[in-house]
Amino acid sequence: MTSPFDLNALDQQDPLAGCRHLFSIPEGTLYLDGNSLGPLPKAVPARLQQVLQQEWGTGLIQSWNTADWLHLPQRVGARLAPLIGATPEEVRAADSTSVNLFKVLAAALSLQNERPVVLSDTGNFPSDLYIAEGALQQEGRGRTLRLVEPEAVLEALDEQTAVALLTQVDYRTGRLHDLKAVTQRAHEVGALVIWDLAHSAGALPIDLNGGGVDFAVGCGYKYLNGGPGAPAFVYVAQRHHDSLQQPLSGWLGHAQPFAFETHYTPAPGIDRLLCGTPTVLGMSALEAALEVFADVDLEEVRKKSLQLTQLFIELVEERCSGFGLELVTPRLPEQRGSQVSLAHEEAYAVMQALIAEGVIGDFRAPNLMRFGFAPLYLSFQEVGEAVEHLRQILSERRWDRPEFKQRAAVT
Amino acid sequence: MTSPFDLNALDQQDPLAGCRHLFSIPEGTLYLDGNSLGPLPKAVPARLQQVLQQEWGTGLIQSWNTADWLHLPQRVGARLAPLIGATPEEVRAADSTSVNLFKVLAAALSLQNERPVVLSDTGNFPSDLYIAEGALQQEGRGRTLRLVEPEAVLEALDEQTAVALLTQVDYRTGRLHDLKAVTQRAHEVGALVIWDLAHSAGALPIDLNGGGVDFAVGCGYKYLNGGPGAPAFVYVAQRHHDSLQQPLSGWLGHAQPFAFETHYTPAPGIDRLLCGTPTVLGMSALEAALEVFADVDLEEVRKKSLQLTQLFIELVEERCSGFGLELVTPRLPEQRGSQVSLAHEEAYAVMQALIAEGVIGDFRAPNLMRFGFAPLYLSFQEVGEAVEHLRQILSERRWDRPEFKQRAAVT
Repeated sequence: MTSPFDLNALDQQDPLAGCRHLFSIPEGTLYLDGNSLGPLPKAVPARLQQVLQQEWGTGLIQSWNTADWLHLPQRVGARLAPLIGATPEEVRAADSTSVNLFKVLAAALSLQNERPVVLSDTGNFPSDLYIAEGALQQEGRGRTLRLVEPEAVLEALDEQTAVALLTQVDYRTGRLHDLKAVTQRAHEVGALVIWDLAHSAGALPIDLNGGGVDFAVGCGYKYLNGGPGAPAFVYVAQRHHDSLQQPLSGWLGHAQPFAFETHYTPAPGIDRLLCGTPTVLGMSALEAALEVFADVDLEEVRKKSLQLTQLFIELVEERCSGFGLELVTPRLPEQRGSQVSLAHEEAYAVMQALIAEGVIGDFRAPNLMRFGFAPLYLSFQEVGEAVEHLRQILSERRWDRPEFKQRAAVT
Repeated sequence: MTSPFDLNALDQQDPLAGCRHLFSIPEGTLYLDGNSLGPLPKAVPARLQQVLQQEWGTGLIQSWNTADWLHLPQRVGARLAPLIGATPEEVRAADSTSVNLFKVLAAALSLQNERPVVLSDTGNFPSDLYIAEGALQQEGRGRTLRLVEPEAVLEALDEQTAVALLTQVDYRTGRLHDLKAVTQRAHEVGALVIWDLAHSAGALPIDLNGGGVDFAVGCGYKYLNGGPGAPAFVYVAQRHHDSLQQPLSGWLGHAQPFAFETHYTPAPGIDRLLCGTPTVLGMSALEAALEVFADVDLEEVRKKSLQLTQLFIELVEERCSGFGLELVTPRLPEQRGSQVSLAHEEAYAVMQALIAEGVIGDFRAPNLMRFGFAPLYLSFQEVGEAVEHLRQILSERRWDRPEFKQRAAVT
């Protein structure tokens, strides 16, 4: 590498460099897909063995009490709270992001009976849009889901808007919404907001309370490293707790689950968002994974994240120009999450060629390569190496090989 | 023990005796709570280590393809299918029992627009009733949930009934519904049926296809031994697949999840019941746990189950009479699941005293002791020993000790 960037010096000065040893990352892998699935925190296998052998194997049914399995949604929620600017009583870990979104969307709509529109944008993760469709159809009141371009959200918010349903960081482009400004505008027009933090929680500081956010959901398996299909989380601002109503009224959301009454009485506060029995294995893995964040300053994470993405953008532009790449991610740091997306006509095959070299990013149809930069385990030198691999592949037109064009089920 | 029963001979002749070595059961524990949480199958920890280290740790994001995480709902569903008399295409593992019930209840109601009643019974697991309340309220069409005594269900089914929502084995009493007769009667009056198999799947042969059942849900962590909070399952008869509609329309229920379209198009068949990303750790544990059933004849399981429960009932009546116990479980074998429940004024404390001796059952308010008899890992001699402990505790009034009266969070 010849470059004006002294990557080694950047790594030497990196206050987060010490976090990398908390993760198991295979030798020879440059992992730029933590925005899709975080790598394995070393604390997780030992914790899972304990859950399997001691808690389940030996403690058996009694571990609901002795290992306090019953309160995993609260315990994990309390670990998540400081990462998203919430109090412990405002966050619970439970179910999947989509199921949690269904709950809070129903709750939000029940507070907005007179307004006909749920507003979202075309950059929202499709599952969020599908859930909104399902919830609105089930409601049967003729309300509609209105989609606008991400840049048009602020202007589109109006007195017709019941709920603005947005993902803070666009899963394709990496574009970052201004959470505070959008929330403020929504409130000015009398709308409620639901933020999906799937692509931001753990990657940047989030201040739900400071931003006055009403509801939020998020994913445990991306920047939070909770493992494939980890439990998701849900946030409800304290001020909405008393009026909270949602249709997935399962037993663990009951005021007294072990009274086994035939009639549902919602638990106080956010606990009424709980539904079925918590998935103890997944919850325990996520709980252990979150230990990584115990001593981490998210301002440092954000600072390094922007350095990493900026470096990647500049190196790509310096070293890979003329190969048909197009930067899709905003150039302005304040509009960027922790990923960089590049468009290329042969994006799928280029990404397969990168993966063959151990540089793991991913592909999103029709023509995007996504590169996630997780500050807790990536070094500046790795960014440089990743770009060098990209340059070689593009300059050799290696994407033209048939083995890189074969599509897999999950792309 | 002096008893007319030759328990040792029964164990010698037990064709399922060889299954016990497939489970990790702590020395000195008589585990009679597999109806609440099955014990740890030995195959699970090794499988989880593989998932953690190889699939997640090394394979990282690529394991969605290389380890086929994407099809865990189908793979686990295919393992469950023969246990419940279904085809592999009629069963998926996903979410919790309560969330799955919400889906199929919505689906069933959408097929029964003109009928005003969901019929259930007072012995149904409360979470099922709570979910029905939530779904009906959300629907906002004024339909009602009607509860009758379990014995009155057949007669209560009528032309008003949209859906009969029943649990095959009563979680408190162990009473077994006649699945085929109830389903047949429901169909005669034009109602659809949803069976919750939480307390029957894995404990007795179930023939959903043979019984003409419309929809079913069930739990992975009881007789199926999938671990605490294991994923649940859902069944939909083939004939309903084309008309299947449900509001939890998450991305994995989309016809092309990885096309990332903004509009929802349901996947063909039962896959449209999938919602969010599958919980890979929980799914993998359940998949490994189900290996236990690979060579098991469920007719043998049922036969031994009835022997175990019959033995327990007879021994309790022989050895514990005069101590205020009342048999709550039906005496007729054809009306019994795989558990026996005994009422006692001091049920909670008696159960705590039993647990102190290593005899693990559980308590259900206000006055029930539940004893589950899982034929795959229990011996006849253990039944005898459990009754002997019960006799000693009752005869010494050991339940009167203060340490046994202290209530825990989960009872």
